[in-house]
Amino acid sequence: MKNIIKPVKGTRDFYPEEMSIRTWLYDKVRHASEVYGYQEYEAPLLETIDLYAAKSGEELVKEQSFVFPDRGGELITLRPELTPSLTRMVAQRQHQLVFPLRWWSFGPFWRYERPQKGRAREFFQWNIDLIGVANPEADAELVAIITTFFRLVGLSPDQVTILVNDRRLIDGELKNIGITDDKRPDVFRLIDRRSKMQPSVWEAYAIDMGLNIQQFQDLISILDNTDLWKKSPELEIFFEALEALNASPFVRFDANIVRGLDYYTGIVFEAQDLIGEVRRAILGGGRYDNLLADVGGKPLPGVGFAMGDVVISLILEKTGLLPKETGKTPAPLLITVFDQEHLIHSLALAADLRQKGLKVATYPQPDRLSKQFKYADRMGYNIVVILGPDEINAGKVTIKYLQTGEQTEIDLDNSANLIQEMLELNTPS
Amino acid sequence: MKNIIKPVKGTRDFYPEEMSIRTWLYDKVRHASEVYGYQEYEAPLLETIDLYAAKSGEELVKEQSFVFPDRGGELITLRPELTPSLTRMVAQRQHQLVFPLRWWSFGPFWRYERPQKGRAREFFQWNIDLIGVANPEADAELVAIITTFFRLVGLSPDQVTILVNDRRLIDGELKNIGITDDKRPDVFRLIDRRSKMQPSVWEAYAIDMGLNIQQFQDLISILDNTDLWKKSPELEIFFEALEALNASPFVRFDANIVRGLDYYTGIVFEAQDLIGEVRRAILGGGRYDNLLADVGGKPLPGVGFAMGDVVISLILEKTGLLPKETGKTPAPLLITVFDQEHLIHSLALAADLRQKGLKVATYPQPDRLSKQFKYADRMGYNIVVILGPDEINAGKVTIKYLQTGEQTEIDLDNSANLIQEMLELNTPS
Repeated sequence: MKNIIKPVKGTRDFYPEEMSIRTWLYDKVRHASEVYGYQEYEAPLLETIDLYAAKSGEELVKEQSFVFPDRGGELITLRPELTPSLTRMVAQRQHQLVFPLRWWSFGPFWRYERPQKGRAREFFQWNIDLIGVANPEADAELVAIITTFFRLVGLSPDQVTILVNDRRLIDGELKNIGITDDKRPDVFRLIDRRSKMQPSVWEAYAIDMGLNIQQFQDLISILDNTDLWKKSPELEIFFEALEALNASPFVRFDANIVRGLDYYTGIVFEAQDLIGEVRRAILGGGRYDNLLADVGGKPLPGVGFAMGDVVISLILEKTGLLPKETGKTPAPLLITVFDQEHLIHSLALAADLRQKGLKVATYPQPDRLSKQFKYADRMGYNIVVILGPDEINAGKVTIKYLQTGEQTEIDLDNSANLIQEMLELNTPS
Repeated sequence: MKNIIKPVKGTRDFYPEEMSIRTWLYDKVRHASEVYGYQEYEAPLLETIDLYAAKSGEELVKEQSFVFPDRGGELITLRPELTPSLTRMVAQRQHQLVFPLRWWSFGPFWRYERPQKGRAREFFQWNIDLIGVANPEADAELVAIITTFFRLVGLSPDQVTILVNDRRLIDGELKNIGITDDKRPDVFRLIDRRSKMQPSVWEAYAIDMGLNIQQFQDLISILDNTDLWKKSPELEIFFEALEALNASPFVRFDANIVRGLDYYTGIVFEAQDLIGEVRRAILGGGRYDNLLADVGGKPLPGVGFAMGDVVISLILEKTGLLPKETGKTPAPLLITVFDQEHLIHSLALAADLRQKGLKVATYPQPDRLSKQFKYADRMGYNIVVILGPDEINAGKVTIKYLQTGEQTEIDLDNSANLIQEMLELNTPS
């Protein structure tokens, strides 16, 4: 076994157990998105590097992206995020699309990061965006969608929280303490790193960047002011809308949240866990009002967020909220095989039951019946059907319900109906 | 608009219209797979080149794969097919997994091919495999799954057909006409190309390869013999099982089918369209009994097939079988906005209806009511809800059913129930 070829570092194998969890998560994401009227879409998984070069931020493109020349020499990127593709797609059909757009997506992304808890180099991400609306109520809708998702998977406000800020508000405050426009991106990066650094290291970083002591102290006062949002008319409307949308219990203001991507222009937000499972944000998003113009479209405002599957899965696992029964067969029924001669009868019965709408597997070859039963049990089949020479001659089948051991002989001709009834009786609703 | 960044050649944008078709196809694939008891799984999208080097065949790996060095210098491949990943995953957990395995998957793949009708460089593929069973009944099950899928999407035996052969049978026949083992892979490639070449060019290719005239004529006789399958005990059992599985109308023997991948060892099959839409196979598959040992596992027999989304979609489009209503909102209900002052009431009503289980969008900002109605119509909403100052004061909402124009005022408190009833009444079942 030692020479089995290894998977690529940071990728994951989804065996049926893991796949059923991914599908469960995808279904929750779909439900939370559709309940607000969002349509599913998907962009290519490969894009040219030019698409990201302008706006995603240097770290993401230069340090974290898989980039390679294709056979034609063009530089191709395994997409590290979706927003640039979204804006490209919108710009391409700007005259045909019906605005406002409400779009969501769930697909694979890649980032070349050091593999660690909460990170994978190949991961799945929920993206959801509202394009064509500039008001704070639109921002509130996106945050409300998060709370709907949290409630759907069973998370409560004492397990997860959503922190909100507005870059325009912080912009103004920075201007007030004499930080010039050209230094703003650096100071945003500084703010973004605060929670990830020791206070003394962070202070040194700030001074190194050119802030004087007074500015540094003023900055701390700004970031620690939990009432700062009252200075922002947008955030006032945002929180009012959030209240109407029944989303307030999960949300609070935090001036430290600025998000890493360069293209945000207004309200930004991220979700964090409160149970201390991971230090990374569960999801992040915000308003980007210039991005469409930047990729060559007509200017259009947008707001959206992205949630990776890795961090949320860790939290759901820790809180015991992941589905319990995973990796079971999707068919409730296994037809056993008596011997080679009668295998064909098992196949024919299976075909008949399938045509009547049942999901049915056959044991695929003759084997000891005890082994077939053990297989049925391990795979999670509910009912086993036995079809031997006696049954065939009498026009009957024997049905065994595995959980109770209950066994009964029924007419072959009417078996589909009877089995259907039996399954309904025995399925917990 | 001219400076919009272009997508990568051979990739596709899935706008909501196209995405709803992909989701529809995925659902059909899921249904056909689950009805036979297959479990969904997924492999990584990136694998090391070593995984393919051994067995996928030179053309696929050297000419058609996207391969690039990652930042650690390792050669990474965007997966061109799934079977090698499947066998790697099975080999890794060979001692924990419960056999026989029935697994299916639907995900993205890449091949660097010349973009043309029926081809894309980034495409989606259905893969389905039965591992741990060596008998021809297992092969028949896989082919029966194809016929179930065809019937599900509405295709009939005069539109599509499945051609079956057995490499062991052809092996024996080639030996009989004096073709040595070392030349067999070349002759398989020759057979595989027959339908893609002019007869004279194909003959020249055969002679050039070292076949003498007698061998060439004998080869033609073998390939044109529609009764050849009667020499194969495996194919006899296969066709008998197919009959029991109610799959025969779609299937016939064809000695010309050998499939391109090097790892097939027994029965092979492919589906073709009969309506002349595309010259490429719709899907292909077969038995591979050595592959698991080749990747470092214990020997285990397997059989499976793969179907790309591009060719089948072309055929379904040509035959008018693709879903007609695509790109509609998933929510049946749009709540309009009277003015900025009352926007908050629309948000609160939406939140209330959502909590009661309805899928609801709000028009996101104040606008002319006629524009909001036009938007509702274009997006495919069924019901528009109007909530102005009069309604709010009276504790009412006005409901308009768009298709009929029918309009009625109902109690706000009971609106969720009444709307639910209205939707059920007006939904064609």
